[in-house]
Amino acid sequence: MSEAASAAARQAMIGDSEFDRDTAVIRREPGVYDIDLSAGWTIINAVNGGYLLAVLGRALADALPHADPFTVSAHYLTASQPGPAVVRTDVVRTGRTLSTGQASLFQYAEDGTEVERIRVLASYGDLDSLPDDVRTTAKPPEIPPIEQCFGADDSPAPVPGSSAIADRLMLKLDPATLGWALGQPSGKGEMRAWFGLADGRDPDPLSLLLAVDALPPTAFELGLSGWVPTVELTVHVRCRPAPGPLRVAITTRNLAGGFLEEDAEVWDSADRLVAQSRQLARVRLG
Amino acid sequence: MSEAASAAARQAMIGDSEFDRDTAVIRREPGVYDIDLSAGWTIINAVNGGYLLAVLGRALADALPHADPFTVSAHYLTASQPGPAVVRTDVVRTGRTLSTGQASLFQYAEDGTEVERIRVLASYGDLDSLPDDVRTTAKPPEIPPIEQCFGADDSPAPVPGSSAIADRLMLKLDPATLGWALGQPSGKGEMRAWFGLADGRDPDPLSLLLAVDALPPTAFELGLSGWVPTVELTVHVRCRPAPGPLRVAITTRNLAGGFLEEDAEVWDSADRLVAQSRQLARVRLG
Repeated sequence: MSEAASAAARQAMIGDSEFDRDTAVIRREPGVYDIDLSAGWTIINAVNGGYLLAVLGRALADALPHADPFTVSAHYLTASQPGPAVVRTDVVRTGRTLSTGQASLFQYAEDGTEVERIRVLASYGDLDSLPDDVRTTAKPPEIPPIEQCFGADDSPAPVPGSSAIADRLMLKLDPATLGWALGQPSGKGEMRAWFGLADGRDPDPLSLLLAVDALPPTAFELGLSGWVPTVELTVHVRCRPAPGPLRVAITTRNLAGGFLEEDAEVWDSADRLVAQSRQLARVRLG
Repeated sequence: MSEAASAAARQAMIGDSEFDRDTAVIRREPGVYDIDLSAGWTIINAVNGGYLLAVLGRALADALPHADPFTVSAHYLTASQPGPAVVRTDVVRTGRTLSTGQASLFQYAEDGTEVERIRVLASYGDLDSLPDDVRTTAKPPEIPPIEQCFGADDSPAPVPGSSAIADRLMLKLDPATLGWALGQPSGKGEMRAWFGLADGRDPDPLSLLLAVDALPPTAFELGLSGWVPTVELTVHVRCRPAPGPLRVAITTRNLAGGFLEEDAEVWDSADRLVAQSRQLARVRLG
């Protein structure tokens, strides 16, 4: 077998990959789903917010008559930990082209009571039913070729903030937004990267929910360090992504009063803007 | 009395203005509020989405221990009509600096059953408690002086799409984004305006919820006509606005598959970025 054929044989498929296994929810009863949150998607000790969004997205795709997330708004309440969790969903409205649902993820306190971690409102539809019409003025981010970008495994020493999730992602940062890792933050609220899953699984609407919250925080390039907890994150999925790596560009324009916004754009290999997101996050002012 | 003093005497105050009266909710029982949706805030026959957001925002400000909306995510389910409505709120989590709540606005079908119009998730805090630190790269929109911009009452004929809400707003559009009204849309997804309340009431966090959804849709400047219903709208309030007129700039980058995003920035008279919003809306492709 050639090296290319061997690599293709090793590539994980949508539905049969680590990401799919770790976001799989088990229906306990109609609308209620169990999951064991994997420790593989943590940053330091906290479970990544994008991974959690994908877990909630899986549950809603099962609970609603439409399969694809069009817009998902998540309010993060308390920090999730690896381990057992339950997702409780509620169908708010079903329509012909869009359905709206609500979902909450709970974990368990020591006495067994449920503690809510995240609550989301989401509207789902069918991406494949949309017309092909595109009139966009948005342009893909300018980012060097993937082999000129840097990942955790390109560093002789561990990159600050790298964590278990780094092993599961193909995340290659634009050198222009990597100053923070060298102690020389640019001062600009920008972060850009090539993004994929480490096992080669191609992107789908569900993995876009992960992609929008997987890069280091723009706050690092603004010279701030430490935890930047998300208060709220809303993502719009605009198109089913083509196979191949994604480009993710994150921008912060306004850091004020201890809060900042992070806007993410996700572009696929066919140069389509496949997802947009915005989050409000808290920062510690240094 | 001088003319200026007379104008000042006529200016409505926060808490005692048409906007305050029309968004006032009456507590029926803890967490449940009645309101008669005013016909004064309609566009054609539909109640404006920003006005509805302010109604929900009033109810949540009463239900939660914090008074100011920091981030509000609304999913619009069915079109609201002027008339009786009930807002049902739920306290999701209360914290020291932020509290999260949920609210739904219902109206009544002919048989008296409740029909849900909008559901929101929102996190509230205290804007006055935030540090003054601002590190922004955002710049106010370039918009001509207010006397060089155009409102509904500057037109010899009624502006297309003008409605009851036009009488309640001080809305002066940048001539550069007014081509649609003359049958010559610019083709750019931009809309800019000076914004205030017609009775001179100064802006506050609540009226910012109205401001982000009060301009004509950017779709008009993209050469599309007709109703552009909001699927989801999330607004971040970043700062208590200073007195005086606001500047609102709306941008659409991506119209695709029959949906578009509208990003709004709201700037106050002190050149502070006081609110950011993004909505996903549906368009009819012409």
